[in-house]
Amino acid sequence: MFVLGVDPGLSRCGYCVLRTDGRRSTAVALGVIRTAVDDAVPQRLAELSHDIREIIDEFSPQAVAIERVLFQVNVSTAIGVAQAAGVVMSEAAGRGLDVAEYSPNEVKGAVAGYGGADKEQVQIMVQTLLELPDPPKPADAADAAAVAITHIAMAAPRVRAVLR
Amino acid sequence: MFVLGVDPGLSRCGYCVLRTDGRRSTAVALGVIRTAVDDAVPQRLAELSHDIREIIDEFSPQAVAIERVLFQVNVSTAIGVAQAAGVVMSEAAGRGLDVAEYSPNEVKGAVAGYGGADKEQVQIMVQTLLELPDPPKPADAADAAAVAITHIAMAAPRVRAVLR
Repeated sequence: MFVLGVDPGLSRCGYCVLRTDGRRSTAVALGVIRTAVDDAVPQRLAELSHDIREIIDEFSPQAVAIERVLFQVNVSTAIGVAQAAGVVMSEAAGRGLDVAEYSPNEVKGAVAGYGGADKEQVQIMVQTLLELPDPPKPADAADAAAVAITHIAMAAPRVRAVLR
Repeated sequence: MFVLGVDPGLSRCGYCVLRTDGRRSTAVALGVIRTAVDDAVPQRLAELSHDIREIIDEFSPQAVAIERVLFQVNVSTAIGVAQAAGVVMSEAAGRGLDVAEYSPNEVKGAVAGYGGADKEQVQIMVQTLLELPDPPKPADAADAAAVAITHIAMAAPRVRAVLR
């Protein structure tokens, strides 16, 4: 089965599709959806929605795991992130996919072993767990992979039940 | 032509469709989309997206005017509002509609004459401007009407040019 991980954002939205049997996972798609800062926000959200739809169409993931939006120092950034997350969650739930949200600390805890891990440690752990030649870049793509890994770790018994 | 006004929210999303010639406007639809607080957020966003799509399909508005999300005291409410607004803007822009955002103060200023107007004053002004038998309720529906009225007031020369 496939799991889509998303690190939501308006300027850069990280995504990662993992193929998994619940024990071992392989990245089959990993990248960042970018929208132009000079474009109007509604247009950028429509583009993000379109691109997420294409990824869902291509891989038919069973679940979408998304990093939860928390309060950030920069309020207008937080609003953009929440809008992007809303679009992704709506698109996924509208297709009948399971959608799970994980806080940044849950993701760091699941991937790197403790909630205080920094971006570099997350990138190196994602590289190791997915047996990638290099740490995934940019950080948004690594974070998307990390949230997909978190979902598989949290839901492993259920994932294996689906596959049995 | 038709203009759709939206007061975004996850529990209650106000909407109002106005038919307008740029001078005089009539409400042809006015109400609130509700989603159940006990349901998961992605499901609620997908329902909101579906309902907005139905309204757009029914009336084919030329423009969508939406109240801008500002920082609110309750952060988790602000995130829900931003997610709802994101879904509505994405849906509208994805259809090629004009989408315009107006701040609460711009809306109050356009409808009631000053940015400090309270909810009741906005409801009464909306009732008067749209020649409704009663003030529109709940307040979310009145606010949606107010943002549609604001858009028409701000864009009136352009609206009339489209109709010419």
